[in-house]
Amino acid sequence: MVKRIGVLTSGGDAPGMNAAIRAIVRKTIYDGNEIYGIRYGYRGLAEGDIYQMTIDNVSDLLARGGTMLYTARYPEFKTKEGLEKAIEQLKKFGIDSLIVIGGDGSYRGARSLSQAGFPTIGIPGTIDNDIPGTDYTIGFDTACNTALDAIDKLRDTATSHIRTFVIEVMGRNAGDIALVAGIGSGAEQIIIPEADLDMDLIVSEIDAGRERGKKHTIIVLAEGVMSGHEFAEKLSAYGNYHARVTVLGHVQRGGSPSARDRMLASSFGYAAVELLSQGKSGVCVGIRGEEIVYGDIIDTLDQKRESVLKPLAKINEEISY
Amino acid sequence: MVKRIGVLTSGGDAPGMNAAIRAIVRKTIYDGNEIYGIRYGYRGLAEGDIYQMTIDNVSDLLARGGTMLYTARYPEFKTKEGLEKAIEQLKKFGIDSLIVIGGDGSYRGARSLSQAGFPTIGIPGTIDNDIPGTDYTIGFDTACNTALDAIDKLRDTATSHIRTFVIEVMGRNAGDIALVAGIGSGAEQIIIPEADLDMDLIVSEIDAGRERGKKHTIIVLAEGVMSGHEFAEKLSAYGNYHARVTVLGHVQRGGSPSARDRMLASSFGYAAVELLSQGKSGVCVGIRGEEIVYGDIIDTLDQKRESVLKPLAKINEEISY
Amino acid sequence: MVKRIGVLTSGGDAPGMNAAIRAIVRKTIYDGNEIYGIRYGYRGLAEGDIYQMTIDNVSDLLARGGTMLYTARYPEFKTKEGLEKAIEQLKKFGIDSLIVIGGDGSYRGARSLSQAGFPTIGIPGTIDNDIPGTDYTIGFDTACNTALDAIDKLRDTATSHIRTFVIEVMGRNAGDIALVAGIGSGAEQIIIPEADLDMDLIVSEIDAGRERGKKHTIIVLAEGVMSGHEFAEKLSAYGNYHARVTVLGHVQRGGSPSARDRMLASSFGYAAVELLSQGKSGVCVGIRGEEIVYGDIIDTLDQKRESVLKPLAKINEEISY
Amino acid sequence: MVKRIGVLTSGGDAPGMNAAIRAIVRKTIYDGNEIYGIRYGYRGLAEGDIYQMTIDNVSDLLARGGTMLYTARYPEFKTKEGLEKAIEQLKKFGIDSLIVIGGDGSYRGARSLSQAGFPTIGIPGTIDNDIPGTDYTIGFDTACNTALDAIDKLRDTATSHIRTFVIEVMGRNAGDIALVAGIGSGAEQIIIPEADLDMDLIVSEIDAGRERGKKHTIIVLAEGVMSGHEFAEKLSAYGNYHARVTVLGHVQRGGSPSARDRMLASSFGYAAVELLSQGKSGVCVGIRGEEIVYGDIIDTLDQKRESVLKPLAKINEEISY
Repeated sequence: MVKRIGVLTSGGDAPGMNAAIRAIVRKTIYDGNEIYGIRYGYRGLAEGDIYQMTIDNVSDLLARGGTMLYTARYPEFKTKEGLEKAIEQLKKFGIDSLIVIGGDGSYRGARSLSQAGFPTIGIPGTIDNDIPGTDYTIGFDTACNTALDAIDKLRDTATSHIRTFVIEVMGRNAGDIALVAGIGSGAEQIIIPEADLDMDLIVSEIDAGRERGKKHTIIVLAEGVMSGHEFAEKLSAYGNYHARVTVLGHVQRGGSPSARDRMLASSFGYAAVELLSQGKSGVCVGIRGEEIVYGDIIDTLDQKRESVLKPLAKINEEISY
Repeated sequence: MVKRIGVLTSGGDAPGMNAAIRAIVRKTIYDGNEIYGIRYGYRGLAEGDIYQMTIDNVSDLLARGGTMLYTARYPEFKTKEGLEKAIEQLKKFGIDSLIVIGGDGSYRGARSLSQAGFPTIGIPGTIDNDIPGTDYTIGFDTACNTALDAIDKLRDTATSHIRTFVIEVMGRNAGDIALVAGIGSGAEQIIIPEADLDMDLIVSEIDAGRERGKKHTIIVLAEGVMSGHEFAEKLSAYGNYHARVTVLGHVQRGGSPSARDRMLASSFGYAAVELLSQGKSGVCVGIRGEEIVYGDIIDTLDQKRESVLKPLAKINEEISY
Repeated sequence: MVKRIGVLTSGGDAPGMNAAIRAIVRKTIYDGNEIYGIRYGYRGLAEGDIYQMTIDNVSDLLARGGTMLYTARYPEFKTKEGLEKAIEQLKKFGIDSLIVIGGDGSYRGARSLSQAGFPTIGIPGTIDNDIPGTDYTIGFDTACNTALDAIDKLRDTATSHIRTFVIEVMGRNAGDIALVAGIGSGAEQIIIPEADLDMDLIVSEIDAGRERGKKHTIIVLAEGVMSGHEFAEKLSAYGNYHARVTVLGHVQRGGSPSARDRMLASSFGYAAVELLSQGKSGVCVGIRGEEIVYGDIIDTLDQKRESVLKPLAKINEEISY
Repeated sequence: MVKRIGVLTSGGDAPGMNAAIRAIVRKTIYDGNEIYGIRYGYRGLAEGDIYQMTIDNVSDLLARGGTMLYTARYPEFKTKEGLEKAIEQLKKFGIDSLIVIGGDGSYRGARSLSQAGFPTIGIPGTIDNDIPGTDYTIGFDTACNTALDAIDKLRDTATSHIRTFVIEVMGRNAGDIALVAGIGSGAEQIIIPEADLDMDLIVSEIDAGRERGKKHTIIVLAEGVMSGHEFAEKLSAYGNYHARVTVLGHVQRGGSPSARDRMLASSFGYAAVELLSQGKSGVCVGIRGEEIVYGDIIDTLDQKRESVLKPLAKINEEISY
């Protein structure tokens, strides 16, 4: 019997979401099944903004940032009514399983659907790399490269009278972008939410650097700690530590996905369809080491996430001082 | 007799300054003369931070952003003492003419030296494209491409619930970066210091766009008008016009120079040395159309600059509405 | 009365063609007229592959390489039958004037249509920059940046045992890409079809470089002179001059258009529609210096093109030796 | 007692080698030890082209492609004399351990030194990703992104009359670049040395695609299988299968290292110095999953390498047909 799989993207968009959609659409059709696109995330699901997708819909899509299915916030999905509306629409279109691509909010939606008995699979898609159950999320590698490219450019403009640069990168709960962009740019300081902030130590290290003749200090700061401007203010309270602040902002969400994100997104999309055809649902896919894995979506949401990039903090301390 | 030419960069750095330095160094040596690099602009000149350059000093330099000679602010150069110190150092090193690469502050320094009888030539180097006597300055084309690349990425992340993006680009006195980045990204609004700001008109055009079903509005704003956050506040005073603000900032100053900036910088550097060997000084080089030109530096500073990009404003109005 | 304008792209595609199409579509609709897209160039014109375009057709198009209207070779257009078929289709669709974007083959088609009494305007679109009547063509600046970026990467891999790199860039009749990519990469030799080839001189200059301790020689060669491999063979006939050859190839045709190409394409597209509404046709648009100009298409095709980049050859000789 | 560590790069260069050198230099100095750079690989080692490095030597190095220590072929190192010369030089400079960054040739040199009793550690640096003992090598991720970027550009120029593109990417023994670039670009065919070549099957799949209305076929070919031109000839023997060939070539070796390569190189460099200070040598470092590991260099060279990217071949078959 022909299956009908639905797919939606939700939460903040991430480069590579389109590559995942393409893989899901093409693999589903390859298997002889039908694939339905749901626009604007859970809101579109509740409102029935749904259409059957063909291979033509995903042509020329792999290299494009953003998500062709759009995304939206829809807090109403947390309510019983929101969930019921969604399930109604899924029935109406004859969709028998759903793939959700997004961050932790999206996962909570997928969990609700699973708990309500609707076969759902989650794919981790967010630049923040803050989802349990996977080493990496779709979009993270691209965001790191974008941030790094910007910091490389900032380095060019370093002049004698500017002592300190503060670069605020994305990452509300996770410092992973800051860690990679920091180690990749040789930042003297990487400030992440996972570690305690010790301003005294930072200032003493800047001082030590100056004494060794260092002209510039680069501080990469995850937004989850505080804003770049707030940090610069704290710093200037210590005296002669005027810092130039750059907020990289939403540029980090865009751009053509990197090789790694296209590969990851294609693998995740493929795996999700495979799992559904093996009768599995209520799970989320991920990558551990180089292996595509999956775990129960309920368990996964309860897990505390442990960043695989943690060792970078110590390494950076001893090579970028 | 062997000539001794000095070269310095001053003011904000710009991509392509290194390409100009390289052309000056290599052309001078090709001509059988000597070239002296002065570090940290006019400050280094006054302090004697000067060294003889060889071809090896400029190897692998063409593609690099920033300036290998560094740059610094040095307001003391406006005083008689500052000028005298500089001339003293030039004499001490036996330098008989000077090439200055920079923006309008640098040009004023070059004018003072010329008026004091020291043979000086100015090369326009600033991303802002706000120097009279030339259609284009070194660094402008690269900055436009950097800004455009960032706006392309921001477009990817446009989602349904975000109505309006404000992107603040560089340009204190000139809206040229905003014009090119705006027309290149299809921005619905380009706000530049050369034109009167009419918030009512802007709001009515946003409204008209919404009525036609437009989901996103991109507003590119030159920093010289006001800050992006200030603009967003003004806009939100009109009602439901919440705007997401991105300040591109100093990233625009960096990066490997574009093909056009490398070509322009090489041509300017070459022309400056040529002019000196023809006995000309007290001039600044520029490009008009496709021709390398030069003009009296005193006259040039008195001229009102007319942007060659002015027609873009009208064109954009009729193609990006 | 509402006008009906047709637009097609022909010959080799070039980055920025889409930006020109977008400008034509949006300006025509802004003026209250209708715009028809013709797919696959003159072939599609003869076969009636024509549709009315809306603003939606050109959304998200500015940043994309290639041409959304496709292009094709159609030698039959040179015949009387081909031309008659085309005019028939134009009548059938009620199209009263045509804009053609392309290289010299496209211009010859536009001239035939003009001579047959059909109001036609040409826009220069080719990466080769080999069209008379304009300083620059759409796509040239992007191709130069792409070539330069590749040569920058090749430089990274220069190692001690590799003496000479030959990089073949595009340009059948014009050496403009070679000139810009050559000066931008500091190539010791730039070989273009506009200049006589003197292998003895080249070898003696390589020898002179080696004597001065130079380890690498970069030779940028326009394909119009000969192939890179042919050149390398000629060189190795002189003895110990083994060269590593890289053929950049069709990569140069692709990529998101540069800021300058988007600006140029938007200006050209806008100007073409403007000229038609002023009742002008049988012309081609161009840029001279910074001014958008137009000339009779018959005269223009008879002109000998003079590259504005000619001075770069001499400059490069004296700064990259 | 202060240790003296030597470092060299050997074989083909790879983006990120500089980042590894930087990490080694800075970590060694952080530990209070001395670091010596050896230029031109094993040849420089045998010839004593060795100097003590400081932190200043590696400033501004992270983002740069190539290797600041240069590299060279030196087949003489396989002889007893070559090895003895090297050990003599190491003694002369008082170097007590050595870190070698490179591919399998470099590893064989490191093994010889280890077997001769000199403490040596290998770091895998090659774009080909063909070294046993590690999932990834330094430079591979950058090369994949470079290849992908070029293929993205080639896609733009796809026009109606061109049926088939063959893109030859690097990879003599390993198809890893082809796999990633192929899945990342949606290539219909990925031809790698690890799989049997079945031309009949390829042709029948191209035919099937054409029947479904496909206009373009992209074939990504690892150079280890055969050259792109050879492949195109084989294909055209089947009839109407004219293919346009692009050889990406040495461009793939260059460019600023990606975020992942900078992270990997920094981690490998750090780990090598750590291992030496723990008294370990005769080993090579690697990454397994997300963990930095090390193995006996003799065992590692005897291992058959198993690519972690193998599953991509099957995935691509079912999503890019």
